Amino acid sequence: MPSNDLLLTFNAGSSTVKIGIFAMEGAKARPIGKGVIDLRAEPLSLGLRRGPQTFDVPLKAEVTEDLHDVIDETFARLADHFDIAASRAAGHRVVHGGDRFTGAIALDTAAIDAVESLIPLAPLHQPQALRFIRALRHLKPHLAQTASFDTAFHATQDDLVRRLAIPRSLHDEGIKRYGFHGLSYKFIAGELARQAPQAAKAVVAHLGSGASLCALDGGISRDCSMGFSTLDGIPMATRPGWLDPGVILHLAGERKRSLGEIEDLLYHRSGLLGVSGISADTRDLLTDGRLEARQAIDLFTLRIAGEIGRMAVTLGGLDAVVFTAGIGEHQPEIRAGVAKHLTWLGLSIDAKANAANGFTISSGESRIAAHVIATDEEQVIADEALSLLGER
Amino acid sequence: MPSNDLLLTFNAGSSTVKIGIFAMEGAKARPIGKGVIDLRAEPLSLGLRRGPQTFDVPLKAEVTEDLHDVIDETFARLADHFDIAASRAAGHRVVHGGDRFTGAIALDTAAIDAVESLIPLAPLHQPQALRFIRALRHLKPHLAQTASFDTAFHATQDDLVRRLAIPRSLHDEGIKRYGFHGLSYKFIAGELARQAPQAAKAVVAHLGSGASLCALDGGISRDCSMGFSTLDGIPMATRPGWLDPGVILHLAGERKRSLGEIEDLLYHRSGLLGVSGISADTRDLLTDGRLEARQAIDLFTLRIAGEIGRMAVTLGGLDAVVFTAGIGEHQPEIRAGVAKHLTWLGLSIDAKANAANGFTISSGESRIAAHVIATDEEQVIADEALSLLGER
Repeated sequence: MPSNDLLLTFNAGSSTVKIGIFAMEGAKARPIGKGVIDLRAEPLSLGLRRGPQTFDVPLKAEVTEDLHDVIDETFARLADHFDIAASRAAGHRVVHGGDRFTGAIALDTAAIDAVESLIPLAPLHQPQALRFIRALRHLKPHLAQTASFDTAFHATQDDLVRRLAIPRSLHDEGIKRYGFHGLSYKFIAGELARQAPQAAKAVVAHLGSGASLCALDGGISRDCSMGFSTLDGIPMATRPGWLDPGVILHLAGERKRSLGEIEDLLYHRSGLLGVSGISADTRDLLTDGRLEARQAIDLFTLRIAGEIGRMAVTLGGLDAVVFTAGIGEHQPEIRAGVAKHLTWLGLSIDAKANAANGFTISSGESRIAAHVIATDEEQVIADEALSLLGER
Repeated sequence: MPSNDLLLTFNAGSSTVKIGIFAMEGAKARPIGKGVIDLRAEPLSLGLRRGPQTFDVPLKAEVTEDLHDVIDETFARLADHFDIAASRAAGHRVVHGGDRFTGAIALDTAAIDAVESLIPLAPLHQPQALRFIRALRHLKPHLAQTASFDTAFHATQDDLVRRLAIPRSLHDEGIKRYGFHGLSYKFIAGELARQAPQAAKAVVAHLGSGASLCALDGGISRDCSMGFSTLDGIPMATRPGWLDPGVILHLAGERKRSLGEIEDLLYHRSGLLGVSGISADTRDLLTDGRLEARQAIDLFTLRIAGEIGRMAVTLGGLDAVVFTAGIGEHQPEIRAGVAKHLTWLGLSIDAKANAANGFTISSGESRIAAHVIATDEEQVIADEALSLLGER
């Protein structure tokens, strides 16, 4: 088998980094392996997959601010399984592209500085990808690097949809609804066009530990439940989604909570974990018999359905609902719970297809189609990187 | 004409107090006059209406914290037009009843203390009614006083609808969605039952300078767009409605705005005023040709329609949309703008009936009815007061 040039993708989240290994085959990026490191684990280990094989590779390095030791050892261990010396490029998922970046970009020094300048818009998330970008630039200067933005797919939204009802000077300074999970929605839009082209007006529910909804019209983003920050929209594992602004004034004013305490409350102690008091994981909550667990699940599905109702208004109609990401792809109870609230719109679920996580889970007589589609953000990062490399 | 006992109502808002004068006729409270004082005006004046007559009565008193001078002079001037010595009771609109008050109450000392204990839930609004209650108790101790709560009508909502996705200990301590404008919605529910009993599932849009929506099922409140505070839901004259919680963290963190500045921003400089930069009043915005005015109106109608979509999910259907309060009753352009976004649900407006502010403004073939109903919070306060007096 001839050795291909390789392309790596890096998807750095709040505690883990996911690495994708792709073979560059002309205009196509073919996935050949993947790795994941939990940066909070001690000691570190690299979870590797190559085809059907999985490996759990212990790492000796410790996590430092510059990540140099971790990256050096990771490349060395990847080289045991892949022709890593043939790597030509690294594509990164970056949370925020602001108003400036409405598509993927090649990362030269000026571009990296520009990405860094957006930290104030996503102070908790933007720095994670930047650490990897700067480390690779230092350690592997021969790799071409690219950035794929979570926000970019939503640049097609109307000005009105992106507006918050705050002073317009703040809007002009960038306090607006950007939308996130764009790489996932771009992948799903592609799959929808291929597998269900008749579904013009669709709401996609990306339900992972972070969760949002996107309104698509002909594959174009028209609305997103996440707005300015990743806190808004539907409840998530530990984030609240939609929250009355008066609650924050009350916590800061009447209850004298500090900004740091409120930030921790909203990012880490709300959502499913907060409502249940039991777990942030829907798998735990679905098997837990207690009322508190049930309430968290019921609030989750009610809010998802309510947001689908709101987005159908943005779209002016609804042809399909799509479920994706960990919860969306694998949890029939959640999908059925959401669908139950949309019965009045003509959505009916085929219980057997739903239980089997089938592509089409709506019944034959359903006026609205319901689909389950596995998302693949790494493939979008790789495709976007390859497309940029081809332009050079 | 035999003189009746009189009942007065007090509806104290952030800058004005509206006074209703009712004749007690058995179990009925018949409106015979009304007054309004703008407490920020200098000098003060009492705008009076008795039947078709209106009077603008100058007041010499100045506004003091205890309001004694203003109230003494107001009663004296009211006595020039009404048999005010026959007053038996005063009913007050009180913003917050918390979890404790799910209906109107007679105000004895313990009850007044209990109402006062709810100030932390509505620090800007709760004190306004309390000033009048305490002043009347001191100056007119013979008057029986009652309180009608803006929140009480929503006590019928499901626990789930009232829940925010925050730690359940905070919910248990009272940080939940209460809903407001309940006196208006109670009045509309009564009118709907009388005039359009077939409309079981209805969303009522109370559009004034404060604005919210209420989902009614058979006259029972099932959801409200205002939640914990009066900031949430749809954009208002100067309040934002739905706002990403991350915006407040950003303003307080990255931009170092103080809590007082943020509170002022959200209560007084957002909403239609903030988006347009021109005016908080839809009448100004509708006649202003500038893009900024149009954007504010378009955002207002989009958000109202989106919230109707969300509430139809809570209700599991939608039979009717009702418009009420100043904007809802008098501005056909706003109603048409909202309805346009709901065409896909089968709502169609009769342009002529809409222009005439008719009771039914939906067309004959519309699958969803649309109505305009004038609200009357004072009548509800009076009716509730009379009902409590009858129980004594």
